[in-house]
Amino acid sequence: MLMESRLGIDIPIIQSPMAGTQNWELALAVSEAGGLGSIPCGMLDPEQVKIEIESYMTHSSKPYNLNYFCHKVPAADNIRMAGWEKRLDIYYRELNVKPPSGEGLLRLPFDSRMADLIEPYAPPVLSFHFGLPARDLVRRMKSWGAVILSSATTVEEGDWLEENGADIVIAQGYEAGGHRGMFLTADISTQMGTLALVSQLTNRLKVPVVAAGGISSSKDIKAMLHLGASGIQSGTSYLLCTEAKTGSLHRTALKDQARKTAITNIFSGRPARAIRNRIMEELGDICEIAPEFPYSSIALAPLRQKAESCSSSGFTPLWAGQNRSGCKEISASQLTEELWNGC
Amino acid sequence: MLMESRLGIDIPIIQSPMAGTQNWELALAVSEAGGLGSIPCGMLDPEQVKIEIESYMTHSSKPYNLNYFCHKVPAADNIRMAGWEKRLDIYYRELNVKPPSGEGLLRLPFDSRMADLIEPYAPPVLSFHFGLPARDLVRRMKSWGAVILSSATTVEEGDWLEENGADIVIAQGYEAGGHRGMFLTADISTQMGTLALVSQLTNRLKVPVVAAGGISSSKDIKAMLHLGASGIQSGTSYLLCTEAKTGSLHRTALKDQARKTAITNIFSGRPARAIRNRIMEELGDICEIAPEFPYSSIALAPLRQKAESCSSSGFTPLWAGQNRSGCKEISASQLTEELWNGC
Repeated sequence: MLMESRLGIDIPIIQSPMAGTQNWELALAVSEAGGLGSIPCGMLDPEQVKIEIESYMTHSSKPYNLNYFCHKVPAADNIRMAGWEKRLDIYYRELNVKPPSGEGLLRLPFDSRMADLIEPYAPPVLSFHFGLPARDLVRRMKSWGAVILSSATTVEEGDWLEENGADIVIAQGYEAGGHRGMFLTADISTQMGTLALVSQLTNRLKVPVVAAGGISSSKDIKAMLHLGASGIQSGTSYLLCTEAKTGSLHRTALKDQARKTAITNIFSGRPARAIRNRIMEELGDICEIAPEFPYSSIALAPLRQKAESCSSSGFTPLWAGQNRSGCKEISASQLTEELWNGC
Repeated sequence: MLMESRLGIDIPIIQSPMAGTQNWELALAVSEAGGLGSIPCGMLDPEQVKIEIESYMTHSSKPYNLNYFCHKVPAADNIRMAGWEKRLDIYYRELNVKPPSGEGLLRLPFDSRMADLIEPYAPPVLSFHFGLPARDLVRRMKSWGAVILSSATTVEEGDWLEENGADIVIAQGYEAGGHRGMFLTADISTQMGTLALVSQLTNRLKVPVVAAGGISSSKDIKAMLHLGASGIQSGTSYLLCTEAKTGSLHRTALKDQARKTAITNIFSGRPARAIRNRIMEELGDICEIAPEFPYSSIALAPLRQKAESCSSSGFTPLWAGQNRSGCKEISASQLTEELWNGC
């Protein structure tokens, strides 16, 4: 109950922030059911972030979580970008589209300007992916009462997050969908299964540990609480919910249990788990020439757009974890209740 | 309790068979504590198998498990073997050893001759890795009352094992040490975390499911039972036990938590989780030119032997799972009791 009272929630279920497939509406439905809804802000501009927060606050006074990336943005490597476009040229020709001219929508890290923008709202919970923002920013967020979360994918990352100010550590196991939160290593072989990671982090950390990765049912949640987790985070299970903005091609892929997931760096430059599709099959899940995060996505954007307009998900990141058996086409409020109480 | 009564044991803990690091003595200590001890037979000749069984039976009337591989043995690919030796030539020169002239100790699959040999003992439990033996052999073992176990690493493999006669299915998650039991796929990206695999298999199979991979403590076991598992299998935790034959270099590596595991095909030709060492670092964990299972091991044998004689584990398969926090230098009987009751 420590974690719930710290977060001001009734049940220890956090909805995973899923940039690109959901907004405040999914967060609202989860929070209204007593869990913690999350609003992914990593791909939004400042104006959009304000709209998200204000829309949520218009409908609810329950706590919510704002999620950001906090990677270091490398300078664009033009030679690498050109090599990537060259590798993709066969697809540009096939789909009859041009390589992109501008940068398009990029994942940007949390910074002091974003802190300026959100401080007036004093968001109660902030979660980060790829480590934590600079110390002064962490201090500043805590000064308005925010609880700070971040994801660990290894024992060492758990230790680092606790030492560097995380109030709650999310143990993101190998099963999890979307981007691996890894930040102290780039070696995918270090990534630990949810069971092994949660068990070890709950043994060593003083802060509460939230289990994430492959959690799709009430029995999964109970098992993680028995393991010592203070709560769980679940994303994949919410992707078919009525409040999610998951695209129809993504929904179709999620329902097809024969399609398997793999960890790929193709879509963004960082490892992330998605249902395998044409581009992953043809380039290999891990493609050494893909530009660094977040630049890989730029050259793919026109391919994705054109393919989707022809009802093909061959270039779409179909984010999903290793257990899709909990996906239901119901309200996220009802799903949250069923996750907690069984159904 | 269904599974315990079926196996004739008191507590639902199966000690993972670990070829090369244990014999009947470890199995005896586990079985005497009420769990199910396993004797790995996949690398033993018929005479050695008889000695193992008779030694065990001299000391105990409790049930035990005989473990075998059941892969198809491909014809040796001499061109590939030569390429592998060529790749290793730099090490032969450095260590001043010759490439092997004969085939050496190979992992052989279970066959009717082995069934002839063990039938007089009517071993109560038989477990298999890489699927199941031919149907007539499975029927024959069941005719003397044996309970048949095998490992699934995916949902599809779990379904296949149940349909093809496994009485109990071991859900071998990504966290597990040693050889991946995968047999319907060679794609490592299909391998599921223990949580996701156990949760899904317990939902769909009628036969009992045993959780394996990353299970190292009483709380891990309780969590898996809450998830619906009928029992657990644990190997890594036993590797430091007094009854284990784990070599001293292997023991040293196990105690060094800073050293991480990875899945590698170098040592045998099939993917298996081991603590990363020099050969894995220098050739890459997955080395495309390594000969098919079980042939990779032949060319490595003289390097391993020479390096070990110089106290180097650079060419030794340091099998281990992703959670070594349960390794204790105590009797396996005591460890079994502590795994079950906590300590």
